[in-house]
Amino acid sequence: MDENTLTVILVEPQLGQNIGAVARAMLNFGLTELRIVNPRDGWPNPEALPSAAGADKILENAKIYASTLEAIGDLNRIFATSNRTPDMIKSIYTPNLALQHLTLTARQGQKVGILFGGERCGLRNEDISLCEALIRIPTSDDFSSLNLAHAVVIIAHEWFAQTASSPFEFFRTGRTRLATREDLGRLFNHLEEELDRTGFLRHPKKRAIMLRNIRNTFQRALLTEQEVRTLRGIIKSLTDGEGKIQKKAS
Amino acid sequence: MDENTLTVILVEPQLGQNIGAVARAMLNFGLTELRIVNPRDGWPNPEALPSAAGADKILENAKIYASTLEAIGDLNRIFATSNRTPDMIKSIYTPNLALQHLTLTARQGQKVGILFGGERCGLRNEDISLCEALIRIPTSDDFSSLNLAHAVVIIAHEWFAQTASSPFEFFRTGRTRLATREDLGRLFNHLEEELDRTGFLRHPKKRAIMLRNIRNTFQRALLTEQEVRTLRGIIKSLTDGEGKIQKKAS
Repeated sequence: MDENTLTVILVEPQLGQNIGAVARAMLNFGLTELRIVNPRDGWPNPEALPSAAGADKILENAKIYASTLEAIGDLNRIFATSNRTPDMIKSIYTPNLALQHLTLTARQGQKVGILFGGERCGLRNEDISLCEALIRIPTSDDFSSLNLAHAVVIIAHEWFAQTASSPFEFFRTGRTRLATREDLGRLFNHLEEELDRTGFLRHPKKRAIMLRNIRNTFQRALLTEQEVRTLRGIIKSLTDGEGKIQKKAS
Repeated sequence: MDENTLTVILVEPQLGQNIGAVARAMLNFGLTELRIVNPRDGWPNPEALPSAAGADKILENAKIYASTLEAIGDLNRIFATSNRTPDMIKSIYTPNLALQHLTLTARQGQKVGILFGGERCGLRNEDISLCEALIRIPTSDDFSSLNLAHAVVIIAHEWFAQTASSPFEFFRTGRTRLATREDLGRLFNHLEEELDRTGFLRHPKKRAIMLRNIRNTFQRALLTEQEVRTLRGIIKSLTDGEGKIQKKAS
């Protein structure tokens, strides 16, 4: 068993299709430990395969238990998902806060897990009372029943988002790089010279604010060095073109 | 149209079952604006109904478009979801960061939307180039293909989590309240008196550290006032009981 993982425990799930979708959601986010308490339609369940979409090994390795208590025996911290508010003294966590707790605990080498109830009525109070706290996925009051796999995918994504170490670059620049202040300075100087020359900035009172607005427009675009050169080429082309037209017209 | 909402745009989705699951996921998180560009199997699609699980009005009100450009014409900010890294200069946001941008923009009364590609190959580069930035849901490298509705539910949950105003109480205390420091002080004093009397704290060198550990154990439990009284009742019962047994034994 991977030491730094989250165990997903499904308590009395009904539809094989949902169990398969849970397996897919888990593997998308690097989770491999699936435990199932009393699946309604027995196990293995061939109806789980299509919706697993290739996450077959999660289903093959799933462990089956006769009671929730047996399924969580070796875990150090266990949370229960529910959108009910049971009549118990219990902390209720958002997914974000719950996974902050569980990812930190897992990083210390302790075993963590989350219980998910069946499609029809979720977890029983007896299951909830075995857990440290509740996780409530906040939903619209008018339409609050989440699909089982949807609940798992929200939790699994939150786990991965909190454990993955910067999985991608924020800004794709390809073979170029972000423009420096100097690159932008050259662009602005070039543009402003041409705007002065062509009379666009001819009102002295407005000149400063117009220049500021133009600079801000381009600052927001997070330009690359390549794009700065392209823009300077465009300015050159436009002014040369204007020159030619003027020559023709004269 | 609700002014403070997120429009979900599905571009060339294939399976009616997935469109229905998208509708359910949207309504779970208060989103009602669904637009569909060229659904493969036409529209309306009866196969969408079962997986919508009651979110029928989202499907009934869905608007159908012949091109992505038409589908996003009235929107002010549009992001594209993709797990590909297209060869373009483009910012790539996590769902969390993207929704921070979009929820703030929506709150200012501007219209925001997110594109989701079809099941087979996601969004085309032409669709992505219509958008301000990419959203990448971080996934395991080995198994990165998310179900369409799973992608939507992760985004919709993130939207709701960032817009909902504290949808529930963090700690359920029922008819009681969290214990005060004074309540806990009475519990600790009571317990320590009894532990002194019964000889549990008889080693003077260890006394301070033992008391600190015991106090810490109960501090972590986030006790209610009712639970403090129950614990004091337990202490009383245990010490009275011990007295009785000693009497019998003597």
